[in-house]
Amino acid sequence: MNIEKVKIKETERIDDLQRNGYRIIQDPGKFCFGIDAVLLSAFAKAKKGDKVLDMGTGTGVIPILMAARTDADHFTALEIQEESADMAQRSVSLNGLEDRIDIVKGDIKQIAEILPKAKMDVVTCNPPYMINDHGLKNDADAMTIARHEILCTLEDVISGAASMLKSGGNFYMVHRPFRLSEICVLLTKYNLEPKRMRFVYPYADKEPNMVLIEAKRGAKSRVTIEKPLIVYEAPGKYTPEVRDLYEK
Amino acid sequence: MNIEKVKIKETERIDDLQRNGYRIIQDPGKFCFGIDAVLLSAFAKAKKGDKVLDMGTGTGVIPILMAARTDADHFTALEIQEESADMAQRSVSLNGLEDRIDIVKGDIKQIAEILPKAKMDVVTCNPPYMINDHGLKNDADAMTIARHEILCTLEDVISGAASMLKSGGNFYMVHRPFRLSEICVLLTKYNLEPKRMRFVYPYADKEPNMVLIEAKRGAKSRVTIEKPLIVYEAPGKYTPEVRDLYEK
Repeated sequence: MNIEKVKIKETERIDDLQRNGYRIIQDPGKFCFGIDAVLLSAFAKAKKGDKVLDMGTGTGVIPILMAARTDADHFTALEIQEESADMAQRSVSLNGLEDRIDIVKGDIKQIAEILPKAKMDVVTCNPPYMINDHGLKNDADAMTIARHEILCTLEDVISGAASMLKSGGNFYMVHRPFRLSEICVLLTKYNLEPKRMRFVYPYADKEPNMVLIEAKRGAKSRVTIEKPLIVYEAPGKYTPEVRDLYEK
Repeated sequence: MNIEKVKIKETERIDDLQRNGYRIIQDPGKFCFGIDAVLLSAFAKAKKGDKVLDMGTGTGVIPILMAARTDADHFTALEIQEESADMAQRSVSLNGLEDRIDIVKGDIKQIAEILPKAKMDVVTCNPPYMINDHGLKNDADAMTIARHEILCTLEDVISGAASMLKSGGNFYMVHRPFRLSEICVLLTKYNLEPKRMRFVYPYADKEPNMVLIEAKRGAKSRVTIEKPLIVYEAPGKYTPEVRDLYEK
């Protein structure tokens, strides 16, 4: 392990993930992980022996959290942005996870040329949510790329996930509810059948602002919508369920 | 009006709909409307001048409730089962609604030959929820036909609704959440874009058992998931929102 040798840049900071003692390097001026990544890594299931792929891993928060939460054997984490991939690699070293997590620099759109097909038990993705209808360019900053479909579209993500999964393997994604119908149509198009969904409501009496989705490659059509996941019970105060995700 | 002349059979009863003084004839040995019909008729929107079609109207509860709730000009209510259509017709007479509601006996699968295409502003449907994978037959009783896809499938309902709606017209349906993905795929296939959904949870901490859907013919893909609709606050005790639907 190279824990003592990991170098941190001036603009970066190290945050405690409150799980297994794992920490993560982030640059608050660029992009820090949000509650979506925390919820997705808890919603996704992986078991002993599983090979997991995280597409568009950013700073690697999802595989690091899942390495703590699950017994999955191995994680491959794909990231197109050099700086993010480098931060993710240093976080992997910082946590001594080199044996379990591989950071791979590459483009989701070329995933089938980078990684072998149909080998993954689980694929996760926290993709950009917003349709790029403002003509944003490839030289956008890390935060814009994380939020808008500049470097990849929803269809790129879903077709990429489908190509990587074994038959019966599961794809986990978090997204915005306003794209739910499009998501169902695209998942079905690529033979990923939605099996489980959970809507995330900021408050019990508000519209949901996220949806967690599990889709199985090659399954029959039948989805379970789970009980609501409510984030806050009062302003600034998480519900016990969400508090547990951060603290336990 | 023929209110005094409406005949009731021995097995039938008249229930008060608690709205505009309207009543409905039902046969408790066959099929009585449920909360799904009440929720759908409140979720559906119709305005002055609108022409509304209810597909598979059963005893006519949805057009009668919507005649009370909305200013829609006219309702056409299609029902394949002779006995149900007859009951619906007598309920229309009982409420003096002959000018606003036409009961038409006919098959959803032949709707495009029965009614003129693309003339409706609004189409509603409370279809059978269950896939007919038990080989149930056409001579099934009214309750089985109302619950299982024996006489029509989800695709028959959605393609029928699409053929009846004007461009920009709205389709309203209540269904089971386990078929959500299939519903999105079929709506999209027939150019009915899901625009609004609301999940109905029996209790705040349980899985939803119904979903209310609004889809617009020819619209762009973008759906709003509304706040949860919770039915009970305690066993046998409706939440205020649901209580209002029944009583106000």
